[in-house]
Amino acid sequence: MPTATDIAWQPPGISPIDAATETAIRARIDGKAKPLGSLGQIEDLAVQLGQIRHPGEPRGDNAVLLVFAGDHGLTEEGVSQFPAAVTVGMVMTYLAGRACANAFAGATNVEIRVVDAGVAAELPKHPGLIDAKIRMGTANAAREPAMTRQQAIAALDRGCALAVEEIRNGADIIALGEMGIGNTASSSLLLHRLAPAPLEECIGVGAGQNSAGMAKKRAAIEKAAARSDVTAPLDVLAEFGGLEIAMMAGAILGAASQRRPVIVDGFISTVAALLAIRLQPAARGYCVFAHRSAERGHAIALQAMQAKPLLDLGLRLGEGTGAILAVPLLRAAARLLTDVASLSDVLEGKI
Amino acid sequence: MPTATDIAWQPPGISPIDAATETAIRARIDGKAKPLGSLGQIEDLAVQLGQIRHPGEPRGDNAVLLVFAGDHGLTEEGVSQFPAAVTVGMVMTYLAGRACANAFAGATNVEIRVVDAGVAAELPKHPGLIDAKIRMGTANAAREPAMTRQQAIAALDRGCALAVEEIRNGADIIALGEMGIGNTASSSLLLHRLAPAPLEECIGVGAGQNSAGMAKKRAAIEKAAARSDVTAPLDVLAEFGGLEIAMMAGAILGAASQRRPVIVDGFISTVAALLAIRLQPAARGYCVFAHRSAERGHAIALQAMQAKPLLDLGLRLGEGTGAILAVPLLRAAARLLTDVASLSDVLEGKI
Repeated sequence: MPTATDIAWQPPGISPIDAATETAIRARIDGKAKPLGSLGQIEDLAVQLGQIRHPGEPRGDNAVLLVFAGDHGLTEEGVSQFPAAVTVGMVMTYLAGRACANAFAGATNVEIRVVDAGVAAELPKHPGLIDAKIRMGTANAAREPAMTRQQAIAALDRGCALAVEEIRNGADIIALGEMGIGNTASSSLLLHRLAPAPLEECIGVGAGQNSAGMAKKRAAIEKAAARSDVTAPLDVLAEFGGLEIAMMAGAILGAASQRRPVIVDGFISTVAALLAIRLQPAARGYCVFAHRSAERGHAIALQAMQAKPLLDLGLRLGEGTGAILAVPLLRAAARLLTDVASLSDVLEGKI
Repeated sequence: MPTATDIAWQPPGISPIDAATETAIRARIDGKAKPLGSLGQIEDLAVQLGQIRHPGEPRGDNAVLLVFAGDHGLTEEGVSQFPAAVTVGMVMTYLAGRACANAFAGATNVEIRVVDAGVAAELPKHPGLIDAKIRMGTANAAREPAMTRQQAIAALDRGCALAVEEIRNGADIIALGEMGIGNTASSSLLLHRLAPAPLEECIGVGAGQNSAGMAKKRAAIEKAAARSDVTAPLDVLAEFGGLEIAMMAGAILGAASQRRPVIVDGFISTVAALLAIRLQPAARGYCVFAHRSAERGHAIALQAMQAKPLLDLGLRLGEGTGAILAVPLLRAAARLLTDVASLSDVLEGKI
């Protein structure tokens, strides 16, 4: 019987974005009908989108948010103030169109798909729900590996396939969201090993904790960390979870393999991006970072990838809410390249 | 014949937003299906929108950007690196749908109306152009008053009427934009007198200036400031201009009079908001500040109104580009109030 480390996994092939195209795209933006550099970060975003699709043109009309839901055995240790059953409740709320993610998606014309990556309950069939369940939640990582290496690979592959499918169906942009009670604890462990960074600096309040709750959360995370010293990305994922994080990382690799931008949301999504990039560094060029989360540890995750988020609105909800709010910025950046006249045409009266 | 100060002007009636409603609206948001406070500034925005429409519900689907264009006699002094004719060129570009504002508006489903507040040229008739021309550009404020007091009043009234008309036609949100070569110089003078703040701290690079250009700009602004010591808002407007700034201030008063949110863009719009609020303080509660501009002086203008912008993307273009990018945030905030389930419904399985 093969041991965990015997199982090899090959991430999908990804062409790095072509750094040589930056000069030409920036020159094109500099020639647009506006003062030089006057659109700041939107210009940088336009350059990135241009590079991703070069020599084609970027588009942003069809944006799809994939919300990955999964449960965490770590909740047995009391890492969250919310009961694990809230994961199911929130999945039902997405399907009913009544969560914050739905409200934000409705406000921005973004489509939502809800993915059961590993909710610890049987979910009813629903046309809006993609059943990609790998297992009924992860095991308690404070006591044993969150999942097997085979399950980690299956989750990565499934996340990748889902993003690829959306793109083949016309998505210009993939945005990432997640729901999973306990998943900031899991993310702290991943960040600690993958950045790497001191464990204490990777732990934050998540959805909200008082000091007694924080002590419990910290103890559980320390117990899990003490159990295993792995540092290779796939091993870290299998040891500490979670299934929705694995699938988000897979979706990033899938979007990058199809040369489409993927919007990374807050703390948990950013840790998923770090996992994806540790598995396949070429994925970095396809990631757009939406929002600077109020969660401690997010700054470490961003710094590990030299990422500068577009928004800073004090969000710490997850569900892809930050990613959704960044979609209009990507659309605007894409249209800067494709729709705006040149300054010379304006000055020469050619409009 | 009446002298300038003999002409009285009564701003439109505006009901202050009801501070007493904040507690109830915040409690409603706190009861939504999300961790407490986890949507940060979007929650504050939802409170403001709720207060504006109380006891009705806010909506954000129909957003209209009014782009006010005007010319400035101050350009004779060389305050801008761009020739004044660029104002006309840009108006034609908006009408052709090929400016940055059009690209951004297309990306966010915002309608644009272009308003000739005082372009120094005859513009062709165009279905997309609202002819509200008060005069062919302002006079050179370094030598004489930019406009008469009657013209200032006419511009305020016309801006107000335009916003009221859009709202009567269904607009949920009014967003403001401007185009006018030389208008950062005019805005610096207004800010200096209305904040008030030292003149030097109100002067910035505008659309871009080298050090020789900045010296010319500074000299022209100082010359204008030395010519008149007025501080009353209407006098300051008449002395220093501009027509598009006056009309933006009027539009803010008009939106507030109809109890609709109005999105203030960057430096010039924020100075127009300061003018509106100095004329009628109750307008403050209806203003949403979109973007922290890279233009020097913007921080002073914001501070004078205790305003915290939503975005910080390094924009310094104008045209309402920042205001447009804030529209999806207002829509999301409105839907947080109207569309999201309560946490108790989720926890009790009522979804």
